[in-house]
Amino acid sequence: MPSSCVSSPSSSHRHQCVGRLLAPPVPRASLAAVRPSLRRSFVSLRATSTEAAAGPDVAPTGDAGKAAAVRAEMAEAAAVWCALHGLVVGDRADPRSGTVPGVGLVHAPFSLLPARFPSSFWKQACELAPIFNELVDRVSLDGEFLQSSLSRTRQVDDFTARLLEIHAKMMAVNKKEDIRLGLHRSDYMLDSETNSLLQIELNTISTSFPGLGSLVSKLHRSLLNRYGEVLGLDSERIPPNWAASQFAEALYKAWAEYHHDSAVVMMVVQPEERNMYDQYWLVNHLKESHGVTAIRKTLAQVEAEGQVLPDGTLVVDGRRVAVVYFRAGYAPNDYPSEVEWSGRLLIEESSAIKCPSISYHLVGTKKIQQELAKPNVLERFVDNKTHIAKLRKCFAGLWSLDNDEIVKSAIEKPDLFVLKPQREGGGNNLYGHDLRETLIRLQKEQGEALAAYILMQRIFPRASLTQLVQGGVCFEDLTISELGIFGAYLRNKDNIVINDQCGYLMRTKVSSSNEGGVAAGFAVLDSIILTDE
Amino acid sequence: MPSSCVSSPSSSHRHQCVGRLLAPPVPRASLAAVRPSLRRSFVSLRATSTEAAAGPDVAPTGDAGKAAAVRAEMAEAAAVWCALHGLVVGDRADPRSGTVPGVGLVHAPFSLLPARFPSSFWKQACELAPIFNELVDRVSLDGEFLQSSLSRTRQVDDFTARLLEIHAKMMAVNKKEDIRLGLHRSDYMLDSETNSLLQIELNTISTSFPGLGSLVSKLHRSLLNRYGEVLGLDSERIPPNWAASQFAEALYKAWAEYHHDSAVVMMVVQPEERNMYDQYWLVNHLKESHGVTAIRKTLAQVEAEGQVLPDGTLVVDGRRVAVVYFRAGYAPNDYPSEVEWSGRLLIEESSAIKCPSISYHLVGTKKIQQELAKPNVLERFVDNKTHIAKLRKCFAGLWSLDNDEIVKSAIEKPDLFVLKPQREGGGNNLYGHDLRETLIRLQKEQGEALAAYILMQRIFPRASLTQLVQGGVCFEDLTISELGIFGAYLRNKDNIVINDQCGYLMRTKVSSSNEGGVAAGFAVLDSIILTDE
Repeated sequence: MPSSCVSSPSSSHRHQCVGRLLAPPVPRASLAAVRPSLRRSFVSLRATSTEAAAGPDVAPTGDAGKAAAVRAEMAEAAAVWCALHGLVVGDRADPRSGTVPGVGLVHAPFSLLPARFPSSFWKQACELAPIFNELVDRVSLDGEFLQSSLSRTRQVDDFTARLLEIHAKMMAVNKKEDIRLGLHRSDYMLDSETNSLLQIELNTISTSFPGLGSLVSKLHRSLLNRYGEVLGLDSERIPPNWAASQFAEALYKAWAEYHHDSAVVMMVVQPEERNMYDQYWLVNHLKESHGVTAIRKTLAQVEAEGQVLPDGTLVVDGRRVAVVYFRAGYAPNDYPSEVEWSGRLLIEESSAIKCPSISYHLVGTKKIQQELAKPNVLERFVDNKTHIAKLRKCFAGLWSLDNDEIVKSAIEKPDLFVLKPQREGGGNNLYGHDLRETLIRLQKEQGEALAAYILMQRIFPRASLTQLVQGGVCFEDLTISELGIFGAYLRNKDNIVINDQCGYLMRTKVSSSNEGGVAAGFAVLDSIILTDE
Repeated sequence: MPSSCVSSPSSSHRHQCVGRLLAPPVPRASLAAVRPSLRRSFVSLRATSTEAAAGPDVAPTGDAGKAAAVRAEMAEAAAVWCALHGLVVGDRADPRSGTVPGVGLVHAPFSLLPARFPSSFWKQACELAPIFNELVDRVSLDGEFLQSSLSRTRQVDDFTARLLEIHAKMMAVNKKEDIRLGLHRSDYMLDSETNSLLQIELNTISTSFPGLGSLVSKLHRSLLNRYGEVLGLDSERIPPNWAASQFAEALYKAWAEYHHDSAVVMMVVQPEERNMYDQYWLVNHLKESHGVTAIRKTLAQVEAEGQVLPDGTLVVDGRRVAVVYFRAGYAPNDYPSEVEWSGRLLIEESSAIKCPSISYHLVGTKKIQQELAKPNVLERFVDNKTHIAKLRKCFAGLWSLDNDEIVKSAIEKPDLFVLKPQREGGGNNLYGHDLRETLIRLQKEQGEALAAYILMQRIFPRASLTQLVQGGVCFEDLTISELGIFGAYLRNKDNIVINDQCGYLMRTKVSSSNEGGVAAGFAVLDSIILTDE
């Protein structure tokens, strides 16, 4: 659910959460555990630009100085491309950049070359998208399941408790959402221990970077069209990425199902947002390709300026709202006062199409992810056995702390686990020694505190050397990557209008960042280049 | 010849020169002289956004508050458009913005709506473009004419003297430029006194804003597609503007005439340049549309890294240069030391195609403009009588100070004249009292000092109220505008490959800026919307 996981300046806090929650580090020690052949293949890829990147006029002497010059030329060409093509974020150095568009812009941080990614895992991840879309919809309809699964979480997490409160109100009045729109992103890592694609989380609210993410794929294609030959990389192996236009089309089609020509799409946003250009790309596509106006409002503005008419119509500033698209509202920080909660409730009570509804939002919580991983739970929601097998294959181990056997294992082998707070949108993951100490303390205390955490199988992503570009400067570091697959789902009663995979987002993070150093939270936007391995 | 006349932060000095040299102010007093009907029509246009700009959901009550809200909405949408579509400049507030691409970006200053411009004058200006292109080429071939016309200027202007020195060296070795490329911009104002289109100057070197200028036309089209109906403005009345792709195509075709596949285009640039994105648009088009690489070098880098091979080939950093495109070198400031002059000479001595050659550069001086305006001079270079008539029709009065009769008139009626220093790229124009005092002093002194100035008919452009957007802020001011018509000319011996009009640039300037106040130099990028008046 985090909206801004790349370390655009303002989002370092949130990224830090994401990085820590969702991207367990590959500690230096564990690098040795990576199978040499795999490790070499990754390192050699990312090093291509260092070792072999001789420009057309540079003799292939392996001269490090010339290779560095070509790399600098590529980084400069890439930064120019970003400025000309809108691959930009607000620069934290300019205080106005998060509030006023067009001011204080800087290119989004990016990797100079796309990350190698095996075709087979790419295919697997793409196939999962419509299956997860359908799963979210099915689970969302089971209000009792959501309430009971989250009943212990509500005791320890005020934020989830408030969401459940809204959900319960909707259940009490038997509120139905005939038109349901989901814009999801399922995030995966490749685990080098098991050589498998494992899901990190499923985002059902405020999935970010359909706009900038698809631009990075275009940037990498453009660079490889120019430098690919000398690098031995074929731009055609970068999968097409139309996430922005496909998400915009899904919003448009939902708008069309609402059947009211003068209605608008309302994007719920944070008061300050340095990744606003990611959102503006959707606004731009909606307007240019579909003629639909999107307005941007904070939850506080919705509360102050909005009302629900007796027939359920949501009106904000005199405009009828067909679709509410949340790009905020996923974290406790988004609700600094009761005003924001009132705004959220107002939206939920209306007949506007919500992306997501409160039910969809709850399906994306880590606790539900854990419940779905339990034996025989998927079978309640999915009929197709093949789909169930595919889903289960990507589930990492997830356990609640009432499972004494797992807790015992984790205390014995803490390096194989991650201890995650249940709380959404904040808090730090615990590893190793801290994980063991915390588990021992929680066991002694017993009680509700146990429900505040879940245990997850630790994933050991492969590490690679990567050229990262930030603020016009290129540098090399050891990184790990996380692949997000966007998915769109639109349903009107029994009619499934859309159920598609919609592009992808690769995020690449400095691997030392998870060890709590100064670089914590540093990540860049990336794309992938498919390999046959 | 100024490269950056819009007040992007770094160019305020140069704009000030342009504003003062080329855009005589419309003093408050003279506004009364504008014919009421014309004045009203202009003011009503620019005021449209204030008075009638009710959005689709705003009742047409003339409520100023609501109109202001719509204006703010338009300004925000426009600033977003700029960020997404690369209509950006370097922000002076960020010291790195002029040197590193992708850093410290801010939307280029722009007018919220296009300026009204009569179709008849637009047609006239477009028709002049190929005629001026041809004229430049013809005059450039007459080395004796250039040397003799500028012989007095060289006495008083060191910069022109240095250019003439290079020119004389080329004449001495009988250097021929078989392939000649001109990328020009002829600038005009509409004179309200004579109701005519008058040429301000003809730029033959470093003509700026083909990139950003064509984007502003697209921005205005996009805004009018959205708000045009309520404003009563038809986006189809904005002339298409492909200046960037047409200039890039001309550079490409020149490159192709050079017949060497691995050669590059070299852009000569200033060490610090906050309008670099205007240049990068050409680099981008060259690469993306034509597969040609453009490198950017300062004159000092050319001197340090370049050489001319015995066969005349220009090589810089090991790359053979097919075309040298000057985006610097037009002003004394561009030559802080002898190193830069050596770089310029090196280029001129090579067989690379120069845009412009030293001859083309000299044809663009104010003195040559003045010479061409003298009786029977055009006839030396142009055969076609219709062309001569069209050229002469757009010439404002231009006189040297050896014309006693005109000097006497100017002393009597100083408000009808502008006194311009001959010096290129610097110095201030003189008006009114200052003009009279200076003329009287010069008459007493006599001698060579007279040759340092020319007198020009003062142009009284129409003024209008305009919404200007800078740094994300929209404000209204009284402005005057100057229309530049881009033209491209490419010739290989007797074969004219290109002779076209190539889009346009409207610059709109706060009219009080010419009176020396704090706003001096403030100008925005603009486009035009054609009217039938």
